[in-house]
Amino acid sequence: MISLDQIKSLATQSPSKIVLLVIDGLGGLPKPDTGKTELETARTPNLDRLASMGICGLADPVSRGITPGSAPGHLALFGYDPLRFTVGRGILEVLGIDFDIKQGDVAVRGNFCTIDQDGLVIDRRAGRISTEKNSELCKTLSDIVLNGAELFVVPVKEHRLAVVFRGDELSADVSDSDPQKTGVAPQTVVPHTPAAQKVAKLANEFAAKTKAILADHHPANMVLLRGFSQHPDLPTMRQIFKLNPAAIASYPMYRGLAKLVGMRILDTGTTIEDEFDTLVQHYAQHDFFFIHLKKTDSSGEDGDFDAKVHVLEEIDRLLPQIMNLEPDVLIVSGDHSTPALMKAHSWHPVPTVLYSKWCRHDHIREFSEPACSSGALGRFPSVEIMPLAMANALKLAKFGA
Amino acid sequence: MISLDQIKSLATQSPSKIVLLVIDGLGGLPKPDTGKTELETARTPNLDRLASMGICGLADPVSRGITPGSAPGHLALFGYDPLRFTVGRGILEVLGIDFDIKQGDVAVRGNFCTIDQDGLVIDRRAGRISTEKNSELCKTLSDIVLNGAELFVVPVKEHRLAVVFRGDELSADVSDSDPQKTGVAPQTVVPHTPAAQKVAKLANEFAAKTKAILADHHPANMVLLRGFSQHPDLPTMRQIFKLNPAAIASYPMYRGLAKLVGMRILDTGTTIEDEFDTLVQHYAQHDFFFIHLKKTDSSGEDGDFDAKVHVLEEIDRLLPQIMNLEPDVLIVSGDHSTPALMKAHSWHPVPTVLYSKWCRHDHIREFSEPACSSGALGRFPSVEIMPLAMANALKLAKFGA
Repeated sequence: MISLDQIKSLATQSPSKIVLLVIDGLGGLPKPDTGKTELETARTPNLDRLASMGICGLADPVSRGITPGSAPGHLALFGYDPLRFTVGRGILEVLGIDFDIKQGDVAVRGNFCTIDQDGLVIDRRAGRISTEKNSELCKTLSDIVLNGAELFVVPVKEHRLAVVFRGDELSADVSDSDPQKTGVAPQTVVPHTPAAQKVAKLANEFAAKTKAILADHHPANMVLLRGFSQHPDLPTMRQIFKLNPAAIASYPMYRGLAKLVGMRILDTGTTIEDEFDTLVQHYAQHDFFFIHLKKTDSSGEDGDFDAKVHVLEEIDRLLPQIMNLEPDVLIVSGDHSTPALMKAHSWHPVPTVLYSKWCRHDHIREFSEPACSSGALGRFPSVEIMPLAMANALKLAKFGA
Repeated sequence: MISLDQIKSLATQSPSKIVLLVIDGLGGLPKPDTGKTELETARTPNLDRLASMGICGLADPVSRGITPGSAPGHLALFGYDPLRFTVGRGILEVLGIDFDIKQGDVAVRGNFCTIDQDGLVIDRRAGRISTEKNSELCKTLSDIVLNGAELFVVPVKEHRLAVVFRGDELSADVSDSDPQKTGVAPQTVVPHTPAAQKVAKLANEFAAKTKAILADHHPANMVLLRGFSQHPDLPTMRQIFKLNPAAIASYPMYRGLAKLVGMRILDTGTTIEDEFDTLVQHYAQHDFFFIHLKKTDSSGEDGDFDAKVHVLEEIDRLLPQIMNLEPDVLIVSGDHSTPALMKAHSWHPVPTVLYSKWCRHDHIREFSEPACSSGALGRFPSVEIMPLAMANALKLAKFGA
């Protein structure tokens, strides 16, 4: 596979524009009574038109048989090998709450929990306290002053929170304090390497001070930490592709993932229409747009086949708004499949279409899983979408003499 | 490519069952007068039905253009990258005679040869002595006592034998004693690294004692050794995939390869029917079965197009015995192609079908080389068959958050 350094050496800046439309959980499985997937069932004349103008294929986000989480699925679409670049769970948690994570930060997931008078965990979720109570307690804990680092304690939902340590020379290579079971005390955080001693000390200091402060706040009288991780410090899309990229996403986690690769985050609303309007408004200012549409995935996860069909039809109805902008390159793909029949992400490859004036279109006339499997893009890794997009935008120089 | 460590971190144990049916040398080339391959010529209604229920593709065991030996072909099917993991020739030789090779052993191929009164090799094969004579001489040589290692001298066929050294801290990184030509003396075995000094000394001690013992056994009055190699010490399929795997193979080499990756070897007979019966008998006890069918390869190597067609039809006739077990995942593939027209292994990719309830079947209705080339699995490396099988058996967790 071509490396980011090699791509970087070929990438050139130019006025041509690329739009990457990511339909979350796009791929599906056929409903037994009709034999048709969500995408085959949906009436999608505009996507079908795009397929007949463009070149189609089936993309594997990570590797054949591997079910991607949202982070690897998106890293692949942004051109980063998800087997090489990983986003830790603590980082993903803070991305999901729009926390402005910086390089060098260590982030970790937390739970409010209940401990008894002997200090043993008796409820790992503190009776699932309300999000309001959570916010109030996080505000209190934010006043803790640590020896050698800045501290952020951020509420997530119910009993869940995130903790961020900001300081010099932090390493996240430490054990969890969460014992993952009841009847035992929270664990002391232990460094796995000498470089991680500082974070272990900070985490244990935080735990001791938290225990003192929360003593009278039963049931939320302690915090458990797990998944210490660090900003992945990815090269930006500007550095690699020489693009000026922008992201349009109504859900915080996807804005966060886009920010990790250096995209500018555009303010937008909650509907597909809002997101497409945002694209139109900012179309002059950027040469690359990532648009993230969430509801296909949510309805897939709910197991609601018809709702997913409906969202696909709504996307299709609004698609001309993008097509009318006449981007030099328009790609429609997904970060993974979410078949309603499985109510979960799956390993199935994702239908993908790329349109440009130079795409050498194939004979495909319909945007669906079976149609894309006969497309001229073949079956290919999602990480190759960005090089293809760059090439079709005439932004990649010749490789070698 | 996803690593075994990454797969290991995703694999989960579950009751679902995977059957991997390996038809040795499965792929072929079209006969000029009909334009049809062996598989296209054979009447295979059951394989065709499997293709229409499943997802098809063409698998490259090693890499496009590379003709695989049996060991790399099978390692790939078992999920081990054959370019990274290798099985030495000495090891393969002893696997082929059902020798119970242990980790740490050094195995080497041998030839009985003829030397003249000056000690120069005049016939590298000792006039191809009989297998009986070979056995008798190996028995005599087995009495040799070496300084610091246990010795096994095992007959193979005609003039061929295998020698195994068993002891502590052995390294196989030594030169051959076989000069590969006549008119010169057998070579002194030389260590390539300090760690291999012990094996070089053992091999030279063996050669000296052999020469003395065989002095009066003209034409088999000396032994030449080549291909010193060591048990590859592969992680087992149980460790990586959390499977409880079993192998059904009527030929020793394939049982040996299965043993290298930790499969339990099931006793079976010599016919396809025997092997399928063995599967049925042991079906409750394992969650993964590797079944190896040899005769397609043998008839291909013989250049007997019609015999290969006949074997394929026999396999097809018996296939319902497997299908009736309703395994959660059934894969039919091969370790390489053996076109009867070439009378040898070849680099051509191998027709492959995978069936599961979750496979998202394609439009393929026929199990053949041209049909599989249009399948939704596309053209892919055989090493990805195991991750696909695991995914379709719902035994792989999501990758990344």
